[in-house]
Amino acid sequence: MTMHRLYILLVGLFISCAITAEAHNLSSPDGNLNLEFALDAQGQPVYRLLYKSKSVIEQSRLGLLFDETSMTDGFTIKDVSISEFDEVWNPVWGEYAQIRNHYNEMAVELVQSGTRQRTMTLRFRLFNDGLGFRYEFPEQRFLNYLTVKDELTEFNLTGDHTFYCIPGDYDTNEFAYTTAPISQIRKGMEINLRKKGYESKATSFSVQTPLQIKTTDGLYVNIHEAALVGYSAMLLNVDDVKFSLNAHLTPDKNGKKGFVQLPFATPWRTVIVSDDARDILASQLILNLNEPCAYDDVSWIKPMKFMGVWWEMFIGTGKTWAYSDKYNAKPGVTDYKALPPNGHHPANTAHVKEYIDFASENGIDAVLVEGWNEGWEDWGSYHKDRQFLFNKPYPDFDVEALQAYAASKGVKIIMHHETAANASDYELQMDDAFSYMNEHGYSAVKTGYVGYVIPRSEYHSSQWMNNHYIEVARRAARYHIMIDSHEAVRPTGLCRTYPNWMAQESARGGEFESMGGNDPDHTAILPFTRLKGGPMDYTPGILQTQLSYYNGEKNDQFVHTTLAKQLALYLTMPSPIQMAADLPENYRRFNDAFQFIREVPVDWSDSKYLEAEPGDYITVARKDKNSDRWYVGAITDENERTAIIKFDFLPAGKKYEATIYEDAKDAHYQTNPMSYNIRKIKVTSKTVLKQRLASSGGAAISIREL
Amino acid sequence: MTMHRLYILLVGLFISCAITAEAHNLSSPDGNLNLEFALDAQGQPVYRLLYKSKSVIEQSRLGLLFDETSMTDGFTIKDVSISEFDEVWNPVWGEYAQIRNHYNEMAVELVQSGTRQRTMTLRFRLFNDGLGFRYEFPEQRFLNYLTVKDELTEFNLTGDHTFYCIPGDYDTNEFAYTTAPISQIRKGMEINLRKKGYESKATSFSVQTPLQIKTTDGLYVNIHEAALVGYSAMLLNVDDVKFSLNAHLTPDKNGKKGFVQLPFATPWRTVIVSDDARDILASQLILNLNEPCAYDDVSWIKPMKFMGVWWEMFIGTGKTWAYSDKYNAKPGVTDYKALPPNGHHPANTAHVKEYIDFASENGIDAVLVEGWNEGWEDWGSYHKDRQFLFNKPYPDFDVEALQAYAASKGVKIIMHHETAANASDYELQMDDAFSYMNEHGYSAVKTGYVGYVIPRSEYHSSQWMNNHYIEVARRAARYHIMIDSHEAVRPTGLCRTYPNWMAQESARGGEFESMGGNDPDHTAILPFTRLKGGPMDYTPGILQTQLSYYNGEKNDQFVHTTLAKQLALYLTMPSPIQMAADLPENYRRFNDAFQFIREVPVDWSDSKYLEAEPGDYITVARKDKNSDRWYVGAITDENERTAIIKFDFLPAGKKYEATIYEDAKDAHYQTNPMSYNIRKIKVTSKTVLKQRLASSGGAAISIREL
Repeated sequence: MTMHRLYILLVGLFISCAITAEAHNLSSPDGNLNLEFALDAQGQPVYRLLYKSKSVIEQSRLGLLFDETSMTDGFTIKDVSISEFDEVWNPVWGEYAQIRNHYNEMAVELVQSGTRQRTMTLRFRLFNDGLGFRYEFPEQRFLNYLTVKDELTEFNLTGDHTFYCIPGDYDTNEFAYTTAPISQIRKGMEINLRKKGYESKATSFSVQTPLQIKTTDGLYVNIHEAALVGYSAMLLNVDDVKFSLNAHLTPDKNGKKGFVQLPFATPWRTVIVSDDARDILASQLILNLNEPCAYDDVSWIKPMKFMGVWWEMFIGTGKTWAYSDKYNAKPGVTDYKALPPNGHHPANTAHVKEYIDFASENGIDAVLVEGWNEGWEDWGSYHKDRQFLFNKPYPDFDVEALQAYAASKGVKIIMHHETAANASDYELQMDDAFSYMNEHGYSAVKTGYVGYVIPRSEYHSSQWMNNHYIEVARRAARYHIMIDSHEAVRPTGLCRTYPNWMAQESARGGEFESMGGNDPDHTAILPFTRLKGGPMDYTPGILQTQLSYYNGEKNDQFVHTTLAKQLALYLTMPSPIQMAADLPENYRRFNDAFQFIREVPVDWSDSKYLEAEPGDYITVARKDKNSDRWYVGAITDENERTAIIKFDFLPAGKKYEATIYEDAKDAHYQTNPMSYNIRKIKVTSKTVLKQRLASSGGAAISIREL
Repeated sequence: MTMHRLYILLVGLFISCAITAEAHNLSSPDGNLNLEFALDAQGQPVYRLLYKSKSVIEQSRLGLLFDETSMTDGFTIKDVSISEFDEVWNPVWGEYAQIRNHYNEMAVELVQSGTRQRTMTLRFRLFNDGLGFRYEFPEQRFLNYLTVKDELTEFNLTGDHTFYCIPGDYDTNEFAYTTAPISQIRKGMEINLRKKGYESKATSFSVQTPLQIKTTDGLYVNIHEAALVGYSAMLLNVDDVKFSLNAHLTPDKNGKKGFVQLPFATPWRTVIVSDDARDILASQLILNLNEPCAYDDVSWIKPMKFMGVWWEMFIGTGKTWAYSDKYNAKPGVTDYKALPPNGHHPANTAHVKEYIDFASENGIDAVLVEGWNEGWEDWGSYHKDRQFLFNKPYPDFDVEALQAYAASKGVKIIMHHETAANASDYELQMDDAFSYMNEHGYSAVKTGYVGYVIPRSEYHSSQWMNNHYIEVARRAARYHIMIDSHEAVRPTGLCRTYPNWMAQESARGGEFESMGGNDPDHTAILPFTRLKGGPMDYTPGILQTQLSYYNGEKNDQFVHTTLAKQLALYLTMPSPIQMAADLPENYRRFNDAFQFIREVPVDWSDSKYLEAEPGDYITVARKDKNSDRWYVGAITDENERTAIIKFDFLPAGKKYEATIYEDAKDAHYQTNPMSYNIRKIKVTSKTVLKQRLASSGGAAISIREL
């Protein structure tokens, strides 16, 4: 503290005064985290966050600017109330059967000077694993409608920390990560930028959240938001000289950042902190800051593993989503039956039946079919009123026959709704589409938002669209339909409230392995960033990692992992709707390795993060929600390493057999990725396993009691 | 012709060349209208329109600019095909039981030089009453998506003609008309501008269509568009020095004027021409240029007369749409049952039953109820995600009880959906709202779009919204629901294609008589302008014209007509969904005059325009669609006049009794508006009646065979 005070005295007297003179303090239940709140001499709210007595967030401003008024300064404190909350709740699915929501709360009611006495409440919740705070505007006489102009929220950091980040963008999150000190991320992200096709770069230098930070003194800090409802998504402006961040709300195309009516509350701004990287992964802070489940009946929400007519369109064998080569066919206008089929359309009845057969034989719950509906010939356009019809199958896709066939085999078919980001047309078709799903036995849909958004005032992350995604989840719930959304705004824990919103993509997923590749450290960063908001449909399980295998056409394209690491991803990238993304033929070829995918659960009663370092490695043990079986996954980046796996998560005094799916000695993600070994060892709670992982390798372990 | 040619030789040789050297000509079936089409030396398409050998439209350019390419010049003519079309069709409702669609057509296929050989077809249809033309872009190899940048279409006029016009605006048409020579309309419209509250003035000096013109040599010319589908609405830029007009398409807020995919066709640009103003009113050209009815079954579409809980909210007696005075109540959030009722909410069960009783007793088909649903306390905001719920009645409005009561009395209730221009939320709620209507016996809905549009990229007249209105009509048709839309884009004859889109407001309607008033010539202009696109829900029938009658609070507010003129409006402002807008108590007081409203039909088998001059007077005779009875209506502007009514529309050799509802001798719209007289005379087909009309007066005549 002494050093810190010296520092702030140097940068400005009033800052020091604020913290020292009028600070209101809050501690986490375990006392490790401390929050200081104060008003400075101008009546500006400021806060500071400390972890084990060290500053994590230096004194930082709070406040909101509206077109109509400024809620930034001139405040006095009307009331400060402190309370404690402690409950345990049971998520419908997830990494844990029970989640403890334990925090100390400080609500600071501020009143602005002047005759209008405008009030704003700052609500801070301090958990053992971090901080959440938000702005609340209670109903009041002289404020009703507000147009959000800017949010001032600052996160002033304590040094030139390492960021694991992607560039600020209003439309997409599908970027490769840059790992660098703050002072170097600008250049790093420029070098590392891999275009996707519909970026809308933020108007200032910024990064996206969840932002993982490692401080110069070894703290792990994660900044994001929780419960993004009725508001636009937050990016973070970066001052790479002062090491300061501040909120950058996604505007609409008129430059407005949100339209709100009182009473309203912003999403929670979250700062997860620990000196142990494993705690960042284990943190349930963001879920805890979301509202409880909005549905009374959740019996219809069922985690599932699925395969799909999907990866074969990426591997360079000429397979297409489109049924014909008619470049400008129009759904609802063109008579698709009259079009000559292109002969390379895998979403056809016979081929889907093969998937159903395979899924049924291997205990896979469901089969996703992409390219089943009219429109794929010509869909990627912002110019069209309607890109797709969601109740018009292609002529070679027999919905009724497949419904009967799938039912007879005990397999579900997963619907696909690519909206081409025409959200307004999707809203028009949504009820028809969900009714159609109900009529034909579908209970889950993968949605997609590829391209620039319609309504044309909106970005993927602007307020109107954020309302849209929630409306889709809620509307789907009416029909007992589960959602796996792609290209939507990155998640903020809303799956607690709307647990049928099972998973999202909203990051650079496995598909990019066929389009330039994902870096070996990518999946060692995502659990620290993207996954803090909720599960990701990453599409693991690609065992045939080299695409040159197919016909040489994509001979420079390959999955940047070993085969064993693909298996480990089922543990390190948990999702209640999890794909086995490779082709059935590859799973037949690697039948012994596929056994792990066959049996790995997708819903857990407990999780133990054994080892973790962002961008380097993750080792995690999880317990099946529906049995006593444990599974372990370990991954590493391009550096081979030896994972130290302590089996002390197992009950003492019992004997187990662990089946280890590991990199063979000569495995390497570039030169020999599919070299793997399967071995069985005996373990107890006292076992410590030194498990070697190859370069971008991994290990997956299935444990059963003997 | 000689004089004209001399003129164009003076202004430029190439213009003269174009018309003389390469002109392709088309004549109307009766030969009165002639169209000349040519390419000029730059390959720019130009046209000229002549009526009885006199220029109506001087040589004018045609062409479209897209962000992607220019379709304006460099053309050669690939093919010109001329054909004739003649058919008679039967509208579901309207002024005529049968409509003849008779035209000569010239399709000019143009090819642009260069390797891409882009093609555009100009299709001209020349009717006896005018011209329609449009741009067509057939499917072609090197064009698929286009972003509309500008439409060049010119209408070069022949002199300083008189315009009957309202200012160019992207959001509203509810302006008072200015009548002035072109050279003076700019100033005239400025002086005459009466603000409405959500104007979005066009970015250049422009007027709206339908634009009525009277030329310096006595021709009547009407410019509008037909079949506005998938395109933005057209304003007309005015060059008040050169007396030239050109298309000004409504942009979205990103400045884009439309997104189209080939094949596509623009709406028809229409020029109705005659030397007799009556022909302008009688013209069915705009309907003829629309596509035939899109529905197989139209048996559920039923013209109707209605009253409503409506006018009483305008007359200054403190009645409100809102149920309570809670300024920021929120539908779906606030518990309205817990709110104190404000005690002046007429949309309550008991009061609506009174309307039902009155309607039932007087043969009125239906009762509109505004203010029945949650949201009116706080609805006019662009900031809200949801202003209204369309299936949540106020606590004092018992939907089930009223459904039963109305059914027992043989009266329908008309639903009201004020969307507050939140079109995207209406799309979300539409199916639920229409289902709710079906469940509760409603078959018609008045929709409203007051305020700035959400999605926030859009204006009321931009492309996305134009698609929206059509989608609402189509979706409503699924539920057998009729639409009467207020504040939507002005109509373009789409009621032929979607005849459940019965009427629109989309102009300054009767309600403005309580808010500053409508000029006495207003309803002598509207039939020449707004009504050319389709029926208007003008809300005639206000017999108590002075609002000071109620409590003096609006003592400067009055209806700017006599009582008799209000009756005549049922003939001069035909609509298949026509309101009797006054209060039951007033109809009881003026029971003898109300008899005309009781019996006047709303659907016609024939119509004869007997006298007409825009802005001055209109006299029309119409024959009931369901009987042999004829009705006549005559109105005048502020100048009293004597209408000369020739009864030669009646079958010869039969005797009739005509009941005349007329201005009394001392009637005057300002000083003595409610002074009227009812008399009966005998008439035959040979009768010529000299019928005096007071200042802003009228006469309504009911004729029955003896």
